Amino acid sequence: MSKVGVIPGPSLLSSLMWSLWPGRVINAGKSRHNEDQACCEVVYVEGRRSVSGAPREPSPSQQGLCFYYWGLFDGHAGGGAAEMASRLLHRHIREQLKDLVEILQDPSPPPLCLSSTPGTPGSSDPSHLVGPQSCWPSQKEVTHESLVVGAIENAFQLMDEQLAQERHGHHVEGGCCALVVVYLLGKVYVANAGDSRAIIVRNGEIIPMSREFTPETERQRLQLLGFLKPELLGGEFTHLEFPRRVQSKELGQRMLYRDQNMTGWAYKKIELEDLRFPLVCGEGKKARVMATIGVTRGLGDHNLKVCSSSLPIKPFLSCFPEVRVYDLTQYEHCPDDVLVLGTDGLWDVTSDCEVAATVDRVLSTYEPNDPSRYTALAQALVLGARGTPRDRGWRLPNNKLGSGDDISVFIIPLGGPGSYS
Amino acid sequence: MSKVGVIPGPSLLSSLMWSLWPGRVINAGKSRHNEDQACCEVVYVEGRRSVSGAPREPSPSQQGLCFYYWGLFDGHAGGGAAEMASRLLHRHIREQLKDLVEILQDPSPPPLCLSSTPGTPGSSDPSHLVGPQSCWPSQKEVTHESLVVGAIENAFQLMDEQLAQERHGHHVEGGCCALVVVYLLGKVYVANAGDSRAIIVRNGEIIPMSREFTPETERQRLQLLGFLKPELLGGEFTHLEFPRRVQSKELGQRMLYRDQNMTGWAYKKIELEDLRFPLVCGEGKKARVMATIGVTRGLGDHNLKVCSSSLPIKPFLSCFPEVRVYDLTQYEHCPDDVLVLGTDGLWDVTSDCEVAATVDRVLSTYEPNDPSRYTALAQALVLGARGTPRDRGWRLPNNKLGSGDDISVFIIPLGGPGSYS
Repeated sequence: MSKVGVIPGPSLLSSLMWSLWPGRVINAGKSRHNEDQACCEVVYVEGRRSVSGAPREPSPSQQGLCFYYWGLFDGHAGGGAAEMASRLLHRHIREQLKDLVEILQDPSPPPLCLSSTPGTPGSSDPSHLVGPQSCWPSQKEVTHESLVVGAIENAFQLMDEQLAQERHGHHVEGGCCALVVVYLLGKVYVANAGDSRAIIVRNGEIIPMSREFTPETERQRLQLLGFLKPELLGGEFTHLEFPRRVQSKELGQRMLYRDQNMTGWAYKKIELEDLRFPLVCGEGKKARVMATIGVTRGLGDHNLKVCSSSLPIKPFLSCFPEVRVYDLTQYEHCPDDVLVLGTDGLWDVTSDCEVAATVDRVLSTYEPNDPSRYTALAQALVLGARGTPRDRGWRLPNNKLGSGDDISVFIIPLGGPGSYS
Repeated sequence: MSKVGVIPGPSLLSSLMWSLWPGRVINAGKSRHNEDQACCEVVYVEGRRSVSGAPREPSPSQQGLCFYYWGLFDGHAGGGAAEMASRLLHRHIREQLKDLVEILQDPSPPPLCLSSTPGTPGSSDPSHLVGPQSCWPSQKEVTHESLVVGAIENAFQLMDEQLAQERHGHHVEGGCCALVVVYLLGKVYVANAGDSRAIIVRNGEIIPMSREFTPETERQRLQLLGFLKPELLGGEFTHLEFPRRVQSKELGQRMLYRDQNMTGWAYKKIELEDLRFPLVCGEGKKARVMATIGVTRGLGDHNLKVCSSSLPIKPFLSCFPEVRVYDLTQYEHCPDDVLVLGTDGLWDVTSDCEVAATVDRVLSTYEPNDPSRYTALAQALVLGARGTPRDRGWRLPNNKLGSGDDISVFIIPLGGPGSYS
């Protein structure tokens, strides 16, 4: 019914996860088992080799790197992808970081090119640098931070490829949204692919750390792909959006539409092709790609087809996360400052402000050094989103329906007594 | 050398434009003539016909619509496109609005479908509405505002098509960035395609009203297009980005790269294809698409080819603006509140904060009802960005080089004595 995980380590990084599988009564239309999966780990990254190719004695500070990791995986159409991703995604991140162990611990800018010849790292050898050219006056500066972002992005892609490869042998079904946090060298990286959400609540202020990827927020990306690759629409769908389904008797009339370039609406004369089902339709939680799926980024879904059709949906889904970075050292955090991760089961019925109010209400009733305060907060958020049985359903205090979805919440304290000592 | 235009109308909408063609000395590398063009007009839109198809007596309030219009067009590779767009874009907007005259003056929601049969407007006839369907539970609400946005978006596209058609007969050369403002029914619509910029300075606060479209800000859109349509790269370019030019002797080594999905960087092994010139290269003002052009949205450029090649660049450029809307009725503006439009000649050397400081400094030295205060402000901004001759060049007060580009500025006062009477 619930899971609580506490990572050993500084109080700064203690972490609590609460996942609630709602009762069957309010779980209508969902699977019988909680498709949310979670993972929190401390991961040690051993350097693959000296990046310069030169074998050398590792100094104590350059023997390896540690990162703290939290992941929420909200599965759909089967729990296989969420389960596999929760077990393996952090290992892909570790693999991607292996090449960077030495570079990330070296304060000088990362080398742009790594020589394969021992002893000749590309960018520190002047003969490898191109002089100013007409269209290429200088080399770009690449930060350590952007290497970690690139490592996480590529890890998501490799995880997705692994799900594609193993879906037959291991019967890995379905797909999942993935929201993960990597804490490495003083910075918090929040990577989101799907409709989960992360916010930081700091001194009562809300700092969004992710955005949701849905048919509505990614409409123009989806439409552009359908426009550039019409074969992906299989003659069944139109890349145009209409405010409602076009009917055949409306041929020749003029209806509002939007294409991949537009944010506004205009009228167009209805033609035969416009009678096809639209690639993107519906609003809010009911928005769908190809009348099938309500999220546009995530892992898995390699077998997903349009209902009663062999048309694959995967080409329209992206496995790439958006990664946001928060520098933990730029602000002195107090024990009430937290990073909250939640699946859409939480956010569908709880606003950012309501979460911030719950953070304040719950944490203020506990001593700052009482670690159970974060567990209590996670419980309060999950139970608050579920509601209580009343009036033929699970109801929130405002009498609206509670969440009928799986609900999972991570609370990651950002500060605490002694956390910066 | 300079132009000042004042629109007749309420003090609210008096407008001042200052355009400065820099002296030849500091115009190195630019054309000998100012390629910036500007336009400000009051445009009357006559309804095309009753949208319902039914002929009826127009009420006095529904005879037509008026909009105020300001446009800045920053030309490149010839002034033809900028000149033609400055003369015609507002007419395309007028044409697009003609269908909407009646709808925009009707407070009820816009009809989703317009019947071609007289007397049967689509959405007010219940038989035209689709009932709830499994994937299409309801119809979308479309606002009046989004119809105006759509009209402006389509007007940009039609203007671009006209430039394509007339480029031979009328020798319309080059392309232009376009930044236009439409004031209609209490709302300010700011549409930007290119690297000009609009900000509102309100009570000293800066409200950005546009963003710039450059090879850097649109990198991922450009790379995605090159990835999905590799034929557009002509075997000469790679859609991957590298931090500097790859050299053939680096084949087999590992270099940092980014693809269309990444915001971070990662290492990849250099292969033969990576030796091609990158689709996007350079940084800041020196960033280029296909080593040729530094803006990625605008009008024209239909003949633009990669240097020493027949490869067209136009497929990578977008003629669509981003439109932002500001509701003028939601705030009581004072005479010091202004909308500032400027070409990149202004913004390259002047920050938003410096512009806001100049707004405050100049306007406070004039009486609030002195209309010449806005002219003085436009002059101060243009001359401030140009600098003064000193130390073998035109220098700013901080001794940096002044702008060597054409500089054009519009000041649009948002409030004033009696403007809301």
